[in-house]
Amino acid sequence: MIILGIDPGSVRIGFGAVKKEGGRLTHFKSGLIEIPKSPKRSSGLLFLEKKIDDLLQEIKPAKVGVEKIFFSKNRRTAIAVAETRGAILLTIAKKCIPFLEIAPTEVKLAVAGYGRASKKAVIKMVNNVLDLSVSDTTIDDVTDALAIAIAVSNDKHY
Amino acid sequence: MIILGIDPGSVRIGFGAVKKEGGRLTHFKSGLIEIPKSPKRSSGLLFLEKKIDDLLQEIKPAKVGVEKIFFSKNRRTAIAVAETRGAILLTIAKKCIPFLEIAPTEVKLAVAGYGRASKKAVIKMVNNVLDLSVSDTTIDDVTDALAIAIAVSNDKHY
Repeated sequence: MIILGIDPGSVRIGFGAVKKEGGRLTHFKSGLIEIPKSPKRSSGLLFLEKKIDDLLQEIKPAKVGVEKIFFSKNRRTAIAVAETRGAILLTIAKKCIPFLEIAPTEVKLAVAGYGRASKKAVIKMVNNVLDLSVSDTTIDDVTDALAIAIAVSNDKHY
Repeated sequence: MIILGIDPGSVRIGFGAVKKEGGRLTHFKSGLIEIPKSPKRSSGLLFLEKKIDDLLQEIKPAKVGVEKIFFSKNRRTAIAVAETRGAILLTIAKKCIPFLEIAPTEVKLAVAGYGRASKKAVIKMVNNVLDLSVSDTTIDDVTDALAIAIAVSNDKHY
């Protein structure tokens, strides 16, 4: 079973997919979608939808975890991130793939055992669990997306 | 030419369409889309997309104005409104209809001549311009959506 994690941003969207076989998790695919700068907002949204669609088509996830956004975090960009997130959720819903909205603290708790774990601790645990080297997870958004996928795959509620 | 205004909310989305012929504006269609309560977020997003799609199909607007959201307004619901807005913008973009993002102050300036005009002044001017009675515009979200359509239809930049 493939589980996909998505870390939404206003222009950079991290994704990370893990494969779950029995109790074992392995890295499946991860990367970054970057929305090109364009004076036309519609071009950016259509670009993003195409990339997410292609990704879902390619990796065929059984479920997708998408990080929740909170008002207090990144005040300036929160609205833009939330808009991108709405477009992503709609794209997943249209494919009839179940998605789960997961808070950053839940992700940290599941991956590093502590809801307020540091970035460094999360990177370390993602590398440990998926048997990756640090160089594979140097991009924050990608590590976060893999952490989301791990959290969703670990939790029996999801 | 039909111009559609949309006032996004987390569960209530106002819409208002005006018809522009020469310099004259008339009311074309307006109403409210209410997302039914559901434990499944995906159901709500798919419901909204269907409603917006049907509306675009029915009234065939030449352009759509969508109100911008600002961080300072409605702190608690801003994230949810922005997510709904992202889904709406994607739905419009997919239909290849140009959309315009317009700030509340721009709407008020265009409709009531003052960027900080009161709700009451906006209602009065929307009724005046479209020759409606106050009872037609008692729902805030609908009046706001009509005001957005008027603002977009008035401005040569759009």
